[in-house]
Amino acid sequence: MKWVYIEDLEKYPEKKVEIRGWVYNKRSSGKIRFLLIRDGTGILQCTMYSADKDSFLFQEFDRLTQESSLILRGVVKKEKRAPGGYEMSIEEMDIIQIAEEYPITPKEHGIPFLMENRHLWLRSQKQHAILKIRSELIKSIRDFFDNRGFRLMDTPILTPSACEGTTTLFETEYFDQKAYLSQSGQLYNEATAMAFGKVYCFGPTFRAEKSKTRKHLIEFWMVEPEIAFATLADIKELGEDLIIYIIERTLDNRQQELEILERDTGPLEAVKKPFPHITYEEAIQILNENNFKMEFGDDFGAPEEAKLAEIYKMPVCVTHFPAKIKAFYMQPADKRPDLVLGLDILASEGYGEIIGGGQRIHDPELLEKKIAEHKLPQQAYKWYVDLRKFGSVPHSGFGLGVERMLSWLCKVKHIRETIPFPRLLYRIYP
Amino acid sequence: MKWVYIEDLEKYPEKKVEIRGWVYNKRSSGKIRFLLIRDGTGILQCTMYSADKDSFLFQEFDRLTQESSLILRGVVKKEKRAPGGYEMSIEEMDIIQIAEEYPITPKEHGIPFLMENRHLWLRSQKQHAILKIRSELIKSIRDFFDNRGFRLMDTPILTPSACEGTTTLFETEYFDQKAYLSQSGQLYNEATAMAFGKVYCFGPTFRAEKSKTRKHLIEFWMVEPEIAFATLADIKELGEDLIIYIIERTLDNRQQELEILERDTGPLEAVKKPFPHITYEEAIQILNENNFKMEFGDDFGAPEEAKLAEIYKMPVCVTHFPAKIKAFYMQPADKRPDLVLGLDILASEGYGEIIGGGQRIHDPELLEKKIAEHKLPQQAYKWYVDLRKFGSVPHSGFGLGVERMLSWLCKVKHIRETIPFPRLLYRIYP
Repeated sequence: MKWVYIEDLEKYPEKKVEIRGWVYNKRSSGKIRFLLIRDGTGILQCTMYSADKDSFLFQEFDRLTQESSLILRGVVKKEKRAPGGYEMSIEEMDIIQIAEEYPITPKEHGIPFLMENRHLWLRSQKQHAILKIRSELIKSIRDFFDNRGFRLMDTPILTPSACEGTTTLFETEYFDQKAYLSQSGQLYNEATAMAFGKVYCFGPTFRAEKSKTRKHLIEFWMVEPEIAFATLADIKELGEDLIIYIIERTLDNRQQELEILERDTGPLEAVKKPFPHITYEEAIQILNENNFKMEFGDDFGAPEEAKLAEIYKMPVCVTHFPAKIKAFYMQPADKRPDLVLGLDILASEGYGEIIGGGQRIHDPELLEKKIAEHKLPQQAYKWYVDLRKFGSVPHSGFGLGVERMLSWLCKVKHIRETIPFPRLLYRIYP
Repeated sequence: MKWVYIEDLEKYPEKKVEIRGWVYNKRSSGKIRFLLIRDGTGILQCTMYSADKDSFLFQEFDRLTQESSLILRGVVKKEKRAPGGYEMSIEEMDIIQIAEEYPITPKEHGIPFLMENRHLWLRSQKQHAILKIRSELIKSIRDFFDNRGFRLMDTPILTPSACEGTTTLFETEYFDQKAYLSQSGQLYNEATAMAFGKVYCFGPTFRAEKSKTRKHLIEFWMVEPEIAFATLADIKELGEDLIIYIIERTLDNRQQELEILERDTGPLEAVKKPFPHITYEEAIQILNENNFKMEFGDDFGAPEEAKLAEIYKMPVCVTHFPAKIKAFYMQPADKRPDLVLGLDILASEGYGEIIGGGQRIHDPELLEKKIAEHKLPQQAYKWYVDLRKFGSVPHSGFGLGVERMLSWLCKVKHIRETIPFPRLLYRIYP
């Protein structure tokens, strides 16, 4: 008999099939027993009928505990009232294992307990829904870039030097020298962009930040496109297109999971291009008109980012930041050398920065000057300067944080729920 | 005017377009000048005609060095004799930068020099072709699993304990404790498989091996599927299907790059399912009949793997290994507790192991016994044992190394050419 996944049941109408899964719930009602079975792809209502309450099948039913594993065979029929829309009439049941008493119950559990049992918590309906949306999100990002002719170019995790300062780096011994875990693939992307025109990298990145917020993970995934010959304006539009594409794909393909999460999709549906676009200096002015006390050179914190998004009720593009609060490689603005062509895109609904990027310096002398000013090791950046000596071109790119984007899509309160095994300050188990 | 990539030129027949790229080569012939321009997506032959050898355009042409960056405008026509099949008649040329003397020339360079200039070497035709096949390979792997209903579940890089021994681990400080860079996502996959039925992870993995071979990278990418309720036989077939799918996609979509690499595709086209399947004990016997001196318990090295593949002229599946040479979590064979249900798939043409996996122990007591026997820290593996207490089921999976597979597909001699920035013993720059 054919082993079938619950999500594929519609292909087997009125057929006898085999389902393999775990007990999600059970209840009795007179001569009927109901089992809710989950197999990882869906939940199926299964029924047993018997005139004899001591029947073998009923005795087996009584033994079943939550998360017990079993194989069921029977005919599956459409049943509007059942969760998922199908129902199986059980003919045979093989119990693989009667589970020990399952620690996660419908009652409220504290977060430390759930985090300690993350390997089991993943099976819960809400976590399951978030991570299904995550896999769709990642696929949609890859499709977006692949369909536009970008080449995936994996950048290294083990690197000899830092992209954005050394205080938040994980260090390891690399044979006879030191290596650091990558915080961004950008510098390497700039090399591959000169070889392939338009590229993206997509991998884990690491920040050893000693801060505990609901928006930070120690280990998170980031996608970073980089385009030779592209300007700030080009990648601003690319970022808008990417965000809109992700939202559309999620709304199209993960409606059921959004419902489980009770996500009001209105604010997502409202996201349209072009996003409101302001400069950093305009943002400062707007914030001050709204009772913030910001001066030129101040960085935005969570309250400032939330306020800007609240005012526009849309994601907001902010550009032209003070050079002194941005990285050394950013291209200065024309006629305003104190500003750089950086780009931040702030999510709506208070989810803060989801895209950060900009146009990179393409003049070799200016880049060398900045490396010296920032007291970076010249030898380690030799190859990076080379990119400006052998056919330098203006180029731009950005990074989008997967878990930040997913937090917003799902409207979850804390980023720890957006990755299977979150790495947080002092949390590395399981 | 529209900026067009060379690979998209077929959509703009007889149109005037703009090309942005770098000088790949140039030559003169009487009143004609030929420029080969690369833009990362292809190479385009561009021509200038002038009756006046001192024309402005010709003067500009004379200034151009290899890898100089420029923008060209002109009408593109089909031209069978031109590389890529199109030719542009240049009407305007904007030089962005005259490149310094390019260090990589058509003459032979030593490997240390090329590795030191990897950021530029990527632009060379052969490296470009290998990495284009790499991006297709990765996409084909993801499509394979996505189309079969597997969920992508990213597993952590920073882990508190080791999967396969601690001698080859990179260690880092994780706030108040130690963390290690992951060598495999498998243990975590087992948790997500129990939540999602069938899953895969796909990310970088790390082995701090002090060996210098042409088959080992310090940092490499691996895809690892894991399926609840699957047996050794199930994942053997999955591995065969995956390899065949990758080969078909490469042959279909990357013919041009395989030609650049002068890859004889015959041995790839010959790969059909089912692959020859032998047990470890049969392999030992066959090897000894071929003048090897192997005893039960010996591991295969490169010569043994190559010999087996040579005999069968096909990838070979080897199963049922001695327990003592495999990891603690492997399911023992029925009636032969000295053997485990491991699976290795050896590539043909001497490329060695590309898939390693097997069926995992699902009995909690047996697993705890193995953890104790291997002197592994019980507390660190508590969550892993939990998976056997709350609805344990037989389950299986494997890992396929991207760079090993790509080495074989491209028939390159050394694995260092299969990743943009290889990490090798003592090599972490650029």
